[in-house]
Amino acid sequence: MTDAQRFPTIADKTELEEGDTFAPAFDADGLVPAIVTAAETGEVLMFAYMNDEALDRTIETGEAHFWSRSRKALWRKGETSGNTLRIVEMRVDCDQDVLWLTAEMTGAGACCHTGRVSCFYRRVPFGKAAGRKLVMVHTDRQFDPAEVYGDPSPKTKP
Amino acid sequence: MTDAQRFPTIADKTELEEGDTFAPAFDADGLVPAIVTAAETGEVLMFAYMNDEALDRTIETGEAHFWSRSRKALWRKGETSGNTLRIVEMRVDCDQDVLWLTAEMTGAGACCHTGRVSCFYRRVPFGKAAGRKLVMVHTDRQFDPAEVYGDPSPKTKP
Repeated sequence: MTDAQRFPTIADKTELEEGDTFAPAFDADGLVPAIVTAAETGEVLMFAYMNDEALDRTIETGEAHFWSRSRKALWRKGETSGNTLRIVEMRVDCDQDVLWLTAEMTGAGACCHTGRVSCFYRRVPFGKAAGRKLVMVHTDRQFDPAEVYGDPSPKTKP
Repeated sequence: MTDAQRFPTIADKTELEEGDTFAPAFDADGLVPAIVTAAETGEVLMFAYMNDEALDRTIETGEAHFWSRSRKALWRKGETSGNTLRIVEMRVDCDQDVLWLTAEMTGAGACCHTGRVSCFYRRVPFGKAAGRKLVMVHTDRQFDPAEVYGDPSPKTKP
């Protein structure tokens, strides 16, 4: 099944931006970026890509599915770790080429493969570059990656 | 100045994920995706890309700069509309290939080129595809795009 069959395509700018037809604009690789934030805290939890099948399954099941670019496979978030994402709301941006998902975490309450709540666990200090060092925001891990994924742990982005 | 000069590169997975060296992983086009959320509400406001220069200027000035893929130019957010973004916090994800910026809006308090607060102004309903229609979340516009950008308005993504 092709993108064109699962979702319509809109060429007209005004219709794309102001209309009520959901016509996600997949990129040259057939992917659309998806931002996931936590329903409870608003924190950005992760960022990944969906192909048309992943998007279709997410919409039909209410559980986040992505396309793993490293494994080149459909990926149900939490299929290994048990930490799935239940989607509370999905929005699309003005030109329909980015998705924003608000989600509730199940399982250990962690979204990152490192075991942390969020993938965004380090702050980038501002100002001149000299001596710029990342600052850890989440030191706690909700699970042990070696235990969950085995050893060796999966590639950086599962 | 090349990426390698502005920011270091880290090949080791553990150092990249657990270390305190900021080594943003630019993609093949020299870009890194950046998510912007509102400091006040937590709403996702926009999504864009930064090259090394945009990232460098953002860090040094505290004002969001991006790379416009359509115009192929450095883009200080709000340079035309006056709606700039003051960065309150920046975080980087586990494998350092995505940035999350928390920001305060200036000017009219709008981030989208359509004049709305956020680019994510439409909700995607869930369940089976039949009759799936986007639902408008933000109907109000904080500014008139035709007035701000002139006529014709800019391409979808400025």
